[in-house]
Amino acid sequence: MNSIKVIKVGGKVIDDDQKLDTFLEAFMSITGPKVLVHGGGSVASVLGERLGIKPNLMDGRRITDAETLEVITMVYGGLVNKKIVAKLQSLGGNALGLSGADLNIISAKKRDPEPIDFGWVGDVEQVNSQWFLKLLGEGVIPVLAPLTHDGSGHMLNTNADTIASSVASALSSDLETELILCFEQAGVMNGEKLITEMNLLLYRHLKGTGIVTDGMIPKIEVGFQALKNGAKKVSIRHYEDVAKPDSGTVFISN
Amino acid sequence: MNSIKVIKVGGKVIDDDQKLDTFLEAFMSITGPKVLVHGGGSVASVLGERLGIKPNLMDGRRITDAETLEVITMVYGGLVNKKIVAKLQSLGGNALGLSGADLNIISAKKRDPEPIDFGWVGDVEQVNSQWFLKLLGEGVIPVLAPLTHDGSGHMLNTNADTIASSVASALSSDLETELILCFEQAGVMNGEKLITEMNLLLYRHLKGTGIVTDGMIPKIEVGFQALKNGAKKVSIRHYEDVAKPDSGTVFISN
Repeated sequence: MNSIKVIKVGGKVIDDDQKLDTFLEAFMSITGPKVLVHGGGSVASVLGERLGIKPNLMDGRRITDAETLEVITMVYGGLVNKKIVAKLQSLGGNALGLSGADLNIISAKKRDPEPIDFGWVGDVEQVNSQWFLKLLGEGVIPVLAPLTHDGSGHMLNTNADTIASSVASALSSDLETELILCFEQAGVMNGEKLITEMNLLLYRHLKGTGIVTDGMIPKIEVGFQALKNGAKKVSIRHYEDVAKPDSGTVFISN
Repeated sequence: MNSIKVIKVGGKVIDDDQKLDTFLEAFMSITGPKVLVHGGGSVASVLGERLGIKPNLMDGRRITDAETLEVITMVYGGLVNKKIVAKLQSLGGNALGLSGADLNIISAKKRDPEPIDFGWVGDVEQVNSQWFLKLLGEGVIPVLAPLTHDGSGHMLNTNADTIASSVASALSSDLETELILCFEQAGVMNGEKLITEMNLLLYRHLKGTGIVTDGMIPKIEVGFQALKNGAKKVSIRHYEDVAKPDSGTVFISN
């Protein structure tokens, strides 16, 4: 084993069983060691609303109070994670669902409540590469929910793109690592047109001119972070193209 | 590694954070390889009710329709499982939360809808001993939620006592196995008095005279099943006494 693909899927793909099946079948067509990181889709917000908990967002990020953390732990760590694991098993992949607490595989620090108290949100501190390497060496497909833990008995809510980037970064010390962020668009878009290559200079320009906004900004930033930390390839692509090399927006470091 | 303890905890211990902490601290004082199987407590029923899903029980067993399966997968596989895993990690135990789908560690068959259609309920078909042995050999504490899968992409609801008994039975081929079923009572009771030893003849008498009833019957039966399948020791005891040898009701085969 000398290479690894870290693949993240999120957004509406998680909410739609048919899209999720299409994605997982394409994902399984990728040969070699791979890690899957999934987001939560809108299931947690929908369930929270049914339970009378209003989603509380700040700059596109959820404020995670204790009740919201329970909903997220249920939905991300239980419902979504097990649905994906059971489906991958049925497709012949030896999937293992993990939160950061399992095997202490990703520990995090609860975010400082100043200037904004995001609640039970964790910033990744350490990725346990040794366990990833052991599992991958046994042919296991780790399936990570966007949940970490603080080592003191608390689960923490952590963005799935960030988890994917952190895992890709950590594994880059030992393996040739590729990070693929999948969603419902063809990649980073300039209106209707796909941007096929992205470097920092272009990103700053696109951000400055308002062509990339909102949810796309943190996604691109974690992509560059992984590249800086040693990932050999980073791209943002359509979930149906997960197995299609060099599709979508490919990050280049110069 | 030549011995293993398979420990099940359920009932009100799951619902009460203080009781759960007491149990988990006692559990961690047990040296050597161990597996923890947890029930779901009443959290799933409470959540189901908040969502307008009424619990549907037949002979003490839940009828698992598709919506109930989603709630159970969330609560057992997400909320309860991750709470236990995070707490064990904080106590220095390298816990790994698992449903039957993870690593294909317990596969099951959806129960025949005749004579009673229990819905998405699974009867254990195969326990993947090899993965248990690998994990235990690495010092991991497997923490099993009462969920299995059918290998075709569906999660299934499976009784936690049954899972504990099946795991103990399967591991008996390779290891000297002890099964400990923990709950809020001192053991099998005859009114106020603890029954310290139980064999089949006594059990039949107690069942015939109505001294053991309801939820206790399947618990005792899976205990005898494990003994028959090669478990060296089986007992039913108070959760606070989990680490106390020969406490509670000890099963004897003659």
